[in-house]
Amino acid sequence: KTLKIAAIPGDGIGKEVVPAAIDVLNTISEIHGGLKFEFTEFPWSCEYYLEHGDMMPKDGLDILQSFDSIFLGAVGNQHLVPDHVSLWGLLIKIRREFEQTINIRPAKVIKGIRSPLLNPKDFDLIVVRENSEGEYSEIGGKIYRGEDEIAIQNAVFSRKGTERAMRYAFELASRRKKHVTSATKSNGIVYSMPFWDSVFKEVSKDYPDISTDHQHIDALSAFFVTQPDKFDVIVASNLFGDILTDLGAAIMGSIGIAPAANINVNGKYPSMFEPVHGSAPDIFGKGIANPMGQIWTAKMMLDHFGEEELGTTLLDVVESVTNDGFLTPDIGGQYTTKEVTDEIINRLKTF
Amino acid sequence: KTLKIAAIPGDGIGKEVVPAAIDVLNTISEIHGGLKFEFTEFPWSCEYYLEHGDMMPKDGLDILQSFDSIFLGAVGNQHLVPDHVSLWGLLIKIRREFEQTINIRPAKVIKGIRSPLLNPKDFDLIVVRENSEGEYSEIGGKIYRGEDEIAIQNAVFSRKGTERAMRYAFELASRRKKHVTSATKSNGIVYSMPFWDSVFKEVSKDYPDISTDHQHIDALSAFFVTQPDKFDVIVASNLFGDILTDLGAAIMGSIGIAPAANINVNGKYPSMFEPVHGSAPDIFGKGIANPMGQIWTAKMMLDHFGEEELGTTLLDVVESVTNDGFLTPDIGGQYTTKEVTDEIINRLKTF
Ligand SMILES: CC(C)[C@H](C(=O)O)[C@@H](O)C(=O)O
Ligand SMILES: CC(C)[C@H](C(=O)O)[C@@H](O)C(=O)O
Repeated sequence: KTLKIAAIPGDGIGKEVVPAAIDVLNTISEIHGGLKFEFTEFPWSCEYYLEHGDMMPKDGLDILQSFDSIFLGAVGNQHLVPDHVSLWGLLIKIRREFEQTINIRPAKVIKGIRSPLLNPKDFDLIVVRENSEGEYSEIGGKIYRGEDEIAIQNAVFSRKGTERAMRYAFELASRRKKHVTSATKSNGIVYSMPFWDSVFKEVSKDYPDISTDHQHIDALSAFFVTQPDKFDVIVASNLFGDILTDLGAAIMGSIGIAPAANINVNGKYPSMFEPVHGSAPDIFGKGIANPMGQIWTAKMMLDHFGEEELGTTLLDVVESVTNDGFLTPDIGGQYTTKEVTDEIINRLKTF
Repeated sequence: KTLKIAAIPGDGIGKEVVPAAIDVLNTISEIHGGLKFEFTEFPWSCEYYLEHGDMMPKDGLDILQSFDSIFLGAVGNQHLVPDHVSLWGLLIKIRREFEQTINIRPAKVIKGIRSPLLNPKDFDLIVVRENSEGEYSEIGGKIYRGEDEIAIQNAVFSRKGTERAMRYAFELASRRKKHVTSATKSNGIVYSMPFWDSVFKEVSKDYPDISTDHQHIDALSAFFVTQPDKFDVIVASNLFGDILTDLGAAIMGSIGIAPAANINVNGKYPSMFEPVHGSAPDIFGKGIANPMGQIWTAKMMLDHFGEEELGTTLLDVVESVTNDGFLTPDIGGQYTTKEVTDEIINRLKTF
């Protein structure tokens, strides 16, 4: 089969790690004769904005629609374009318009990568983040100017959206350690979060063999530091999921290795695969960006296309490479993006 | 001078650690002849609720008004009373009605207490949390039932409230390492957070000798794990401050040691001193609750009354005790609440 993939390197190190991950995917295709990738690259980014006044062409979404998936690097460079313009014009726009309502982000101990935790034990968790509503709504505004100014922001939680994320989490847990933790804050946030809790309670009834608990986001964030091995699947709102997944990346050892997938669950639009990290303009161009987040993200794309075996192989190879010390500077090594990528490619060929 | 203090042990371990901290404060008063404390204890708690149908009497706030400060243990026991009832009926009610608009929570390396971080360096930070508005608003509701149900929660940011927290942070930083970090999320939350950013930018102009930066809450949470020593004062919204201070407690080694103060800045009402930890009903009654959070909170109360020297002495003594290994089980020791407290008291007497 041939998979048509829209590659959007985006900004900063996205332009370094996307090509690296594409090389890896092409190697996988060479090994596994039956699987072909057809990459089409789009230069949509902050630089594109400076030239065209938009992060992508007017018909950008129509163009993307014809692909099997979107492989994104990183979006945003505040020195060129304000974040809310670049992100809402590309990343968040695609998440919303293509109904990529679920964001999944695993975090686990990777051999050879030192966690900043004294005793990370053997944590292996996955955050299912509601990806289209909640605290990230475009409803709100201001009244008065000066001393009396008031800004109001609405968080919107639909039954559909909340339930969808939760069911996804339960299904996932049923293929893992059979536990779902709900991230809440119903003791402080008294409309949206009690609603969240009640939907969780109801949905959990449909999964009698999955155990559950709920934790307030403050305590849960602390638990990510003190006992991350206690978790299996965590379901969280857009904002809470955002925070927890950066924490998950931190305890793994670097945001540079954390992968993510934005999943369209109704099959109407392509899903989008983009790592957790940003465009890191400060290290762009030095050839030292960590390609592992993007490569692990490629593994999630393989999984998504039903190629779990290849996905597992890829992650195993990545771990053998980290375990042997081929690390970029962000995780304490001295290797370049290219050296790490080449090592992965060579090992894939002889795996 | 005589300070009249309303002591509210509250629920669970609050009933163990408040008496411990009162003993410590009385010892300080013995040493320092000029300073007297007059404690009046109030049994307001979940048990009180079960008996009276309310967390405190109708005239509870009037009663508290005549005190110089409120010394609170912990509120909440979900097995008895739903959290949103107990907390909003006592803790949050006092915060709001007494205009305790600022919550300050320090986190730093304490000698003898092992951080869960491999390399905590020598972090010493303080979070200034907006304590009366933001994401914790009572505005919101639901529409439809069943499949189409939607819950909406408003976050309300006033210019006054936002600016007040920020000015407090800048003033505090001017007596510390002269740096303020703003916790934001303006790339995802597009009404309240850009407003927050703009107020921060404006307020910072009045403090030309304080350096600033801003970090999105996801990245900032990760930095608490990877480089907490990079921070001095952090100013945060109600929710973000809540999350960051639990993280701060976690990287110190235990939520059991983290102190807090709810400050009324306009002088109209008493301030309230309560540690970060909760009532921990699971360990209540065993005599093993960590009294240090409550005792460090007593130090913050001393500071508040202008007794910084005594406050510093108290924290020095606490640190000498931890350094010599007098630790409760939550931080890896085997000592009881009473043993740790007695050790602090004995050392205070000979300091
Ligand atoms: C109990 C809860 C409502 C409270 C809060 O979120 O403010 C607590 O977590 C705290 O930080 O004091
Ligand atoms: C860039 C930002 C808007 C985005 C988010 O908060 O969703 C990012 O942090 C992420 O997690 O993908």
